[in-house]
Amino acid sequence: MAQRIASETLAERVCNGDPRAMARLITRAESGERECRAALAALYRRTGRAHVVGITGVPGAGKSTLVSQLARTIRETGRRVAVIAIDPSSPFSGGAILGDRIRMSDLVQDPGVFIRSMATRGSLGGLARPALDAVDVLDAGGFDLVFIETVGVGQDEVDVVRAAHTTVVINAPGLGDDIQAIKAGILEIADVHVVSKADRPDANRTVRELKSMLMMSMPEAPDAWQVPVIPTSSETLSGFDELLAALDRHREHLHGSGEIDVRRRRIASTRVVKIAEEIVRESFYRAHPDRIETMIERVVERELDPHGAALELLATVKERIRYDEQAV
Amino acid sequence: MAQRIASETLAERVCNGDPRAMARLITRAESGERECRAALAALYRRTGRAHVVGITGVPGAGKSTLVSQLARTIRETGRRVAVIAIDPSSPFSGGAILGDRIRMSDLVQDPGVFIRSMATRGSLGGLARPALDAVDVLDAGGFDLVFIETVGVGQDEVDVVRAAHTTVVINAPGLGDDIQAIKAGILEIADVHVVSKADRPDANRTVRELKSMLMMSMPEAPDAWQVPVIPTSSETLSGFDELLAALDRHREHLHGSGEIDVRRRRIASTRVVKIAEEIVRESFYRAHPDRIETMIERVVERELDPHGAALELLATVKERIRYDEQAV
Repeated sequence: MAQRIASETLAERVCNGDPRAMARLITRAESGERECRAALAALYRRTGRAHVVGITGVPGAGKSTLVSQLARTIRETGRRVAVIAIDPSSPFSGGAILGDRIRMSDLVQDPGVFIRSMATRGSLGGLARPALDAVDVLDAGGFDLVFIETVGVGQDEVDVVRAAHTTVVINAPGLGDDIQAIKAGILEIADVHVVSKADRPDANRTVRELKSMLMMSMPEAPDAWQVPVIPTSSETLSGFDELLAALDRHREHLHGSGEIDVRRRRIASTRVVKIAEEIVRESFYRAHPDRIETMIERVVERELDPHGAALELLATVKERIRYDEQAV
Repeated sequence: MAQRIASETLAERVCNGDPRAMARLITRAESGERECRAALAALYRRTGRAHVVGITGVPGAGKSTLVSQLARTIRETGRRVAVIAIDPSSPFSGGAILGDRIRMSDLVQDPGVFIRSMATRGSLGGLARPALDAVDVLDAGGFDLVFIETVGVGQDEVDVVRAAHTTVVINAPGLGDDIQAIKAGILEIADVHVVSKADRPDANRTVRELKSMLMMSMPEAPDAWQVPVIPTSSETLSGFDELLAALDRHREHLHGSGEIDVRRRRIASTRVVKIAEEIVRESFYRAHPDRIETMIERVVERELDPHGAALELLATVKERIRYDEQAV
């Protein structure tokens, strides 16, 4: 019988750049295994080097093809790149049509590229906590850039993308009006705007519209970051050098302006809150099932209101934490 | 100076069917005011009569127009209907084009219809807790049907829709492949499938495809609920009587089969967990800012890992609860 490798050993191998150890540790983090928490905590001290880039956009914007091509552009500069895909329509996450998979096969075979898809639905703790644990693993593993790719439509998805140093929003020319309205909701989180499918005749109009929208909200300070709008085409392969240059320039801006500290605090805050929420959910779904069942029955029978029940639940969390600490 | 009406008084007026009191109490619940919690707890005992229907679908499926027409169909039977819209592209939530607002104006003037939009982004506690508080208010207020309308793409949105007795998924003919992939993620939560825009020539194909997908996953038990696929057209106004009949039939099925108890427990569970999560987030963002700031700084400096910080945060929640109870 194959012996299970301790998470601490995996963490050491991760720091030596072993991609298989990264994949395994991410799997343990994703499934919420308690055993790997100490290893992740140790690993955390080795992070902070990678440029973490969140990439979002509406479905149909050609986001995944764009990320593949951007990854190739990065590889041409010799840097290593990892992609965490939590977009259900992404070819990385399993939503691919055959053509996508064929176009991606060169990436999958390149050891300087790490691709990881993560399940989004039905996971107990939401997608943020495991995705951001995965960022740590890949950061400690020596990747220069780590992309988090998602569809920016749910709150949890937006939280994940905002837990990056640089946020890229992908826009497509000619999507319907009601989709544009959703896009408006994520307009303001962009550090870099991309208009994909720039080979299409209506792309220029989208670029102009975005630029004029941005003009209205531009900060006045002369040293403020000016959000660029970059047209790219996965057909003609144009715009990707410019996009990578914009990412690098934004990183320099973050460090030069001190904005990086603001972002780091925001990222740390998101992570702490998401983990705390997950512990609360675990207390609900995994600990003391009998007690929880009785409590829910009282809520259903209207003997107890939901807020009162939530307070009762939180009172049990402390016990749960103690149990956790003994188990580790 | 106008005196502020106590939430307890509003709750009494809600139970007497006063729509303005409902609107005000929902606003207080939405903003997370602690003062209204006791009133909501009291109100909770008066709930359980309304048929709560979650309606979701991808953007562009014509969901809002459909909900408007369905509301009219319900009014023709004399029943009262409330709509809680948490879809950023919905005309109820402010994403309307002018035509939508004109088409809806008859509903807005009808006292048997209550329409409420809720903000989705940036709210501290997510959208589930305030939306489900609003359901309680409208249920206690005597509405026969309460719709929760959202875009089924984020986890929080899906949770809200699943916290209904009956879940309707709106499909549109001829949407792109990558949108279909997302749709697949919400396929299995439907009690009733609708194909909107049934006047379009490709609608029949979508109906057939959905039916064959459902055939494959149909349960074998002879008394199990058979998920219907109902074509509707907001152009020709066809299919809405059938859709309302399906909602009524599903409600009868829930009560006849005892499935209603399963759903009620699921709804209660969702609510308790969402409220507990919100209390945790409040502890983070509102209580002890200095202490939290120091903690985050230690995470940024990698002296403390995020999981350790989450445990520290949860230890402060208990203090926070005590503070809450004193404040009420």
